[in-house]
Amino acid sequence: MMRVSQLSTMARKLLPQVLEPRQTGKIVRFNGELVPVQSKSRAFLKHFKYPKRATRENWIHDGSFHDAVSGLLITAQLFSIMPVCGIGQKDTTKLHFSWKSKRIFYSYAACMGTAFLAVTSTIRFVDRNFNFSRLTGVFFYFYNLYGMYCFVRVAQKWPVLMQKWFNVEQLLPQSSNIIERGKLANKIKLISILVITLSLMEHMLSIVAAVYYTPNCPNIKDPVKMFFKSNFLFVFYYFEYSEIRGFVVKFINVISTFVWSYIDLFVIIVSIGLSHTFRRINNHLMNHKREKMTEQFWGEQRQNYRNICDLVRFVDDAISIITMLSISSNLFFICASILNSLNTHPALVHTVYFWFGLAFLIGRTLAVSMCTAAVNDESQRPFEVLRAIPRDGWCVEAKRFAEEVINDTVALTGMKFFNMTRKLVLKVTGSIITYELVLIQFHQDETADYDLCTFRRT
Amino acid sequence: MMRVSQLSTMARKLLPQVLEPRQTGKIVRFNGELVPVQSKSRAFLKHFKYPKRATRENWIHDGSFHDAVSGLLITAQLFSIMPVCGIGQKDTTKLHFSWKSKRIFYSYAACMGTAFLAVTSTIRFVDRNFNFSRLTGVFFYFYNLYGMYCFVRVAQKWPVLMQKWFNVEQLLPQSSNIIERGKLANKIKLISILVITLSLMEHMLSIVAAVYYTPNCPNIKDPVKMFFKSNFLFVFYYFEYSEIRGFVVKFINVISTFVWSYIDLFVIIVSIGLSHTFRRINNHLMNHKREKMTEQFWGEQRQNYRNICDLVRFVDDAISIITMLSISSNLFFICASILNSLNTHPALVHTVYFWFGLAFLIGRTLAVSMCTAAVNDESQRPFEVLRAIPRDGWCVEAKRFAEEVINDTVALTGMKFFNMTRKLVLKVTGSIITYELVLIQFHQDETADYDLCTFRRT
Amino acid sequence: MMRVSQLSTMARKLLPQVLEPRQTGKIVRFNGELVPVQSKSRAFLKHFKYPKRATRENWIHDGSFHDAVSGLLITAQLFSIMPVCGIGQKDTTKLHFSWKSKRIFYSYAACMGTAFLAVTSTIRFVDRNFNFSRLTGVFFYFYNLYGMYCFVRVAQKWPVLMQKWFNVEQLLPQSSNIIERGKLANKIKLISILVITLSLMEHMLSIVAAVYYTPNCPNIKDPVKMFFKSNFLFVFYYFEYSEIRGFVVKFINVISTFVWSYIDLFVIIVSIGLSHTFRRINNHLMNHKREKMTEQFWGEQRQNYRNICDLVRFVDDAISIITMLSISSNLFFICASILNSLNTHPALVHTVYFWFGLAFLIGRTLAVSMCTAAVNDESQRPFEVLRAIPRDGWCVEAKRFAEEVINDTVALTGMKFFNMTRKLVLKVTGSIITYELVLIQFHQDETADYDLCTFRRT
Amino acid sequence: MMRVSQLSTMARKLLPQVLEPRQTGKIVRFNGELVPVQSKSRAFLKHFKYPKRATRENWIHDGSFHDAVSGLLITAQLFSIMPVCGIGQKDTTKLHFSWKSKRIFYSYAACMGTAFLAVTSTIRFVDRNFNFSRLTGVFFYFYNLYGMYCFVRVAQKWPVLMQKWFNVEQLLPQSSNIIERGKLANKIKLISILVITLSLMEHMLSIVAAVYYTPNCPNIKDPVKMFFKSNFLFVFYYFEYSEIRGFVVKFINVISTFVWSYIDLFVIIVSIGLSHTFRRINNHLMNHKREKMTEQFWGEQRQNYRNICDLVRFVDDAISIITMLSISSNLFFICASILNSLNTHPALVHTVYFWFGLAFLIGRTLAVSMCTAAVNDESQRPFEVLRAIPRDGWCVEAKRFAEEVINDTVALTGMKFFNMTRKLVLKVTGSIITYELVLIQFHQDETADYDLCTFRRT
Repeated sequence: MMRVSQLSTMARKLLPQVLEPRQTGKIVRFNGELVPVQSKSRAFLKHFKYPKRATRENWIHDGSFHDAVSGLLITAQLFSIMPVCGIGQKDTTKLHFSWKSKRIFYSYAACMGTAFLAVTSTIRFVDRNFNFSRLTGVFFYFYNLYGMYCFVRVAQKWPVLMQKWFNVEQLLPQSSNIIERGKLANKIKLISILVITLSLMEHMLSIVAAVYYTPNCPNIKDPVKMFFKSNFLFVFYYFEYSEIRGFVVKFINVISTFVWSYIDLFVIIVSIGLSHTFRRINNHLMNHKREKMTEQFWGEQRQNYRNICDLVRFVDDAISIITMLSISSNLFFICASILNSLNTHPALVHTVYFWFGLAFLIGRTLAVSMCTAAVNDESQRPFEVLRAIPRDGWCVEAKRFAEEVINDTVALTGMKFFNMTRKLVLKVTGSIITYELVLIQFHQDETADYDLCTFRRT
Repeated sequence: MMRVSQLSTMARKLLPQVLEPRQTGKIVRFNGELVPVQSKSRAFLKHFKYPKRATRENWIHDGSFHDAVSGLLITAQLFSIMPVCGIGQKDTTKLHFSWKSKRIFYSYAACMGTAFLAVTSTIRFVDRNFNFSRLTGVFFYFYNLYGMYCFVRVAQKWPVLMQKWFNVEQLLPQSSNIIERGKLANKIKLISILVITLSLMEHMLSIVAAVYYTPNCPNIKDPVKMFFKSNFLFVFYYFEYSEIRGFVVKFINVISTFVWSYIDLFVIIVSIGLSHTFRRINNHLMNHKREKMTEQFWGEQRQNYRNICDLVRFVDDAISIITMLSISSNLFFICASILNSLNTHPALVHTVYFWFGLAFLIGRTLAVSMCTAAVNDESQRPFEVLRAIPRDGWCVEAKRFAEEVINDTVALTGMKFFNMTRKLVLKVTGSIITYELVLIQFHQDETADYDLCTFRRT
Repeated sequence: MMRVSQLSTMARKLLPQVLEPRQTGKIVRFNGELVPVQSKSRAFLKHFKYPKRATRENWIHDGSFHDAVSGLLITAQLFSIMPVCGIGQKDTTKLHFSWKSKRIFYSYAACMGTAFLAVTSTIRFVDRNFNFSRLTGVFFYFYNLYGMYCFVRVAQKWPVLMQKWFNVEQLLPQSSNIIERGKLANKIKLISILVITLSLMEHMLSIVAAVYYTPNCPNIKDPVKMFFKSNFLFVFYYFEYSEIRGFVVKFINVISTFVWSYIDLFVIIVSIGLSHTFRRINNHLMNHKREKMTEQFWGEQRQNYRNICDLVRFVDDAISIITMLSISSNLFFICASILNSLNTHPALVHTVYFWFGLAFLIGRTLAVSMCTAAVNDESQRPFEVLRAIPRDGWCVEAKRFAEEVINDTVALTGMKFFNMTRKLVLKVTGSIITYELVLIQFHQDETADYDLCTFRRT
Repeated sequence: MMRVSQLSTMARKLLPQVLEPRQTGKIVRFNGELVPVQSKSRAFLKHFKYPKRATRENWIHDGSFHDAVSGLLITAQLFSIMPVCGIGQKDTTKLHFSWKSKRIFYSYAACMGTAFLAVTSTIRFVDRNFNFSRLTGVFFYFYNLYGMYCFVRVAQKWPVLMQKWFNVEQLLPQSSNIIERGKLANKIKLISILVITLSLMEHMLSIVAAVYYTPNCPNIKDPVKMFFKSNFLFVFYYFEYSEIRGFVVKFINVISTFVWSYIDLFVIIVSIGLSHTFRRINNHLMNHKREKMTEQFWGEQRQNYRNICDLVRFVDDAISIITMLSISSNLFFICASILNSLNTHPALVHTVYFWFGLAFLIGRTLAVSMCTAAVNDESQRPFEVLRAIPRDGWCVEAKRFAEEVINDTVALTGMKFFNMTRKLVLKVTGSIITYELVLIQFHQDETADYDLCTFRRT
């Protein structure tokens, strides 16, 4: 489990990277002015309780999903998402949601900031003629705004959800092995770090690509201003620029970027949790493959299986809208990106940024598809054991169990419109290819209609 | 239940709005001439029995679908649709259909009027070169004409249908709570008023958008004539204009517009009725979840469930053609509208009218899809209870019930070609996107080939 | 049942119409030369046994499919298709196929003729640049050639098929009512006459449309030659024209046209036969709906049902290639026709011919889809009765029967690649729309590259 | 079974054809220089044990799949694929895989060579502007490289797989007939020879088409050099040409071409093996159709059936990636080829080569689809027998068997994303048509940007 102590250390390491683009060179007047911003962000971080020193107990996992996922949720809260209280507690009954907690006020603020960016980018889009790449920007902010809203709704349901999940886990066969119990937590930790790191790398690349032009402009006195103005033209076209405003806008932009990846990450992690829960019962069943068991045994196993199925349905009711959001937006952004692949790139860094971004996006989409599909796959594995029951071990409860496994489709869904199964991957791929082939004919190499050095229209 | 008294009051409020576009300003000579038309429409309204004062009894609902839907049907009859007699009676046995009732003669007249508009718009379309927006007009009238015909066919089957529905409801567990029993009626009333109001708003907007040009034309002496001639060019290009004719054509146009929305509304309301019926049995079953019940109990519940399934099939046989009509035409009009979204609009009112119309259309389509899909969803919910039957409560009838729930697809259909389920929404969306992307390349900003001020070709 | 006597009368009426286009006017030298051709065709007709006078017995139907379909098959043999011997006999055991019968030699000749036209049209297509309308011609002849070949293969299997079908029918509950027994035969007769008449009308229209140009050409001395040369340019471009050759080519063309419609007709008729067989058992079951029957009763009914399912599979093995051919070619020709709908037509007769042809084609395709789908629909109707079995009537055999009805997909197929169900209609429609929208961009109004008056290239 | 002796004879006959394009005429200086290459290839062949004279025993088949397939695998090893040791042994336990065997070093070398060609062709593709036909080349080499890698992975699993397969076969009813037992081996032999021969023919044609230009170039001194340089421009544009290098590159190219066909062939052969295994149990069941059998009989048969299902799943786990590779690449190459069909061909030989190649490609794709689908078809055939069990023979084990046959989808898959069934063929065809129609608008007749005589850019 990722403890508060580690995380805040990590946060301390990471946040400056995000907030202080010191490494992009040539930014002379930058350091002097950053101090108040930095101290603000530090004051902000004080709201979190002062991290205690992690003890050995913090590192021992009880194998529950709540325990495994809490580290990730704390990280998310740094970026204003999932404002549930008591998330660091081992006990699920301590979880609660309040409309007046400190955390949710942070969320309100972030939502309002994102809404502001969404609206200004829309105005900019409508103001000028249609421009596909600007449309992508509008989508990006609205999508993240809606994502933030969804996470507030999920946060509301989270305490009940975790309690239910915990109860189901208690009834499952327990592993006495401490390493076995830590497996799920480690897996989740690993994937979270991987996705967040890649997401940060992509964001860094986008900054590098953006500042690339700076040296090419003559008479640049303030490269930080330059960077903010060119990057958030849709804001500073309508509003006066100041450095504070620049950093605030960038901060909201960072949160949006995090949300963009986090939506996918959240779906992946929840799917892994559900698959793991199924795997615990499947492993238990596999130990009795080809054996003759009592009717009571099958009855109990069926009951456990049924509980997990109900859990999947309950979880799905809460998160299916996020799954839908993840799949549909990725479809849109992949199509838009591939279409952009035909553009010429001004420099190598743009090429690298573009292809890295596209690969990361496709990778995330595939990961979401495969992990959610794994829930469905795992739910069908008891079938193998049930088919192998010998003739004299066949009984009414085994039959009921077999019928349930065959007939029920247990899967996460996209707002109940489609089941997340392996077949979906193919359909999504097919849709992307078809849409792409049709879209490609509308492609025109987009030229800048705005000189980024002088901020005048060309 | 919406009583005759209320409705005719509502009708009195609504009809002048439709017939007297007084609020569109600058129509000076209008009021003087409207009087005979108005008195005609009043004479027409006399054919309905003089409304009695609504008593307390009129406001108490018995929870039956017939009782809940009768108000909407009376409203529809004001617009010539669903000419069934005895619709205001509480007793379903009083319902009857006659080929010689006053109501059906009104329907005949409306059909003939719509047929006339359909034919003239076709002639106008064929007469000149292909023009996509005119094709939309041709579709609109033919579609509504066919819709009217379908509703006459439904009206024929309605008495038997209601009788059957009533019988099924009698066998279901009854609620003693008076508010509970009024729920369905209130829900239907609410949705009906919402859809009809939005439909009227859209129609108002279309009128406002149409008269917008009037002040721009020089030498306009008669703005009413101006309005009718420009709006029904396809009629008055071939026929001499007179004010009476203008109002008659407009009246038929109003009826067509009502039918257009009513087709969707009707499917929504029937679906809600069926879902509600399923929900009554589901709620009863939910009360006994995880309990051990007798075989007789399951047998009875299965029989009730079977009755509703048969009812769904029976209803579907009657209305599946209307469902098909609703889905297919909405698909067509959405595609056509999105294509038009690329046109430039001359003024803000046109932009508002266009986007409001498109949003309303998509909203209706979604509502139709979701409400019909809900019937299918509700039909599968007994499954939850059946899966939770404890080991010693499992019996042959429970097993039969479970098998029926799993294997039978109970859903409204589009002429049996497709089932209305949640998966359909996705397919329809996919089709719209694909067709749109392909269609978009044929788009050309359509220019008027006819000067609306002088009525001469440009 | 359509007897030989009637048919040959019909043939006498019909054939001159086909062979002697006397009614196309202005063909002066025509009559003089037709005589030898006519006498040849009469000599040819002598090979059929001299028709006996139809007795009352000929008009009484035993209700078997063999009896009902024999009339149609005799008509087909007039056009060289389905060369089975003994088709006019009531007794299915008298049916036989021989590679050396007179009928098959007629088939050989027709095949060779069609192959000749297919090859010459291909050469003409390859010879000149790509031309979509000529490609349609190439497809037309190859498709009919392959159709003829398929019918020879079906003819080979026909005797066994009819024997099997007859055996299944014997075990089904018999109707004592003579009118009931004649129902199937009358239905088949009616549909056959309808389709063949429409097909002939379309062919007549094509001839009228073809000769339309004749009066416009100056210096026409021989309008018959004119007609043949312009119609079969792909033959007489490479071969010397003579009147005999002209008529032979036209005769082969008539056969091809008949085959084109007959493929659809055959699938329709067989489907109707199978649906009817299912309906006999369904009607019997319906009489016992909601009744408590013995286990033996359900066992027998299940056995009967199983026999029909096996029959469907057996029939499908024989004709699935023809079903495939019908669906795929109709899809192709509808797409090609709709694409042609954008062409301008030189005269009204061409417009009428075009739209009549397209409507007939779509009608046939729909008829094929609906009739084959009806087999699948009927196969699922026992389900209604089985669901209504009362609690104490439920037994192992009823359960087995119910499981078979639910789980087995009994349907005709297109070479086992797809099942002919109602859902297919939607898919086919969707495919046509999609392909059409994509194809439409390749459309160019095709101009004749050949002057039909002078037979020189323009 | 194809014995080593025959194979090396065949190899001796075939290899010179591949390595010595003597028959392409006018290659005068060729023979003199080929000798060292030839002697090298002979030295290489010595690594295989000197073939023993085939005895009668070699020609007797035990009916096992391992025995039937070993000949093909030895052939594959000649082309560096499937480096398993002990493949010529009758005993499956002698099979083993080693990362240090001679065979695998050959595979390493071939992989490195293919990787080299893949990289150079990519560089060439990126170096110049986008060019669709070069993209095809890049795909070709990467695809084959990945294919080779997959076969190494399959080789690793092969010993366990064959052992498992052998065990399953031992439990099946054995045929005493020696011809019956040889059937599978003969079928596999026949298909292998057919596919390899066609593949060689296509490759020959490609060589002939490539050398066609040679005589048209003036001042050609060295036609061999000419051939290699024009064919492998993407190599010799960056590297100095020498004759040894030319032959090495050609050799790698030959291996790649073989791999291209072998991927399809391998999937076909494994599918045939699995279908055959199912057919053995099906034939046994068919002998007892309509008979009343004991419960034990059904239990045993069900167990056998279950074993084969498990085998299919096990095999699929190993080869599903190759199936996916086969289907997806064939889809790509068919689309690319059809698009190329619109190009004009400089000479008849190119036309023949093109259409032969396309027909062979489509044929292979169809063969893969149909053979893999046959596994699924065969797995459902016990159903026929189970449906025909008489009333008193129906028992719990028969019921279990029937349920398994109906509910389980036993089929090879493409990486579990889709099942290989007959329906897939239709979907693949539909995809090809759709993609093709959309792609066709991007088609441009590609012109050579490089003069093949002077090796200078035009």
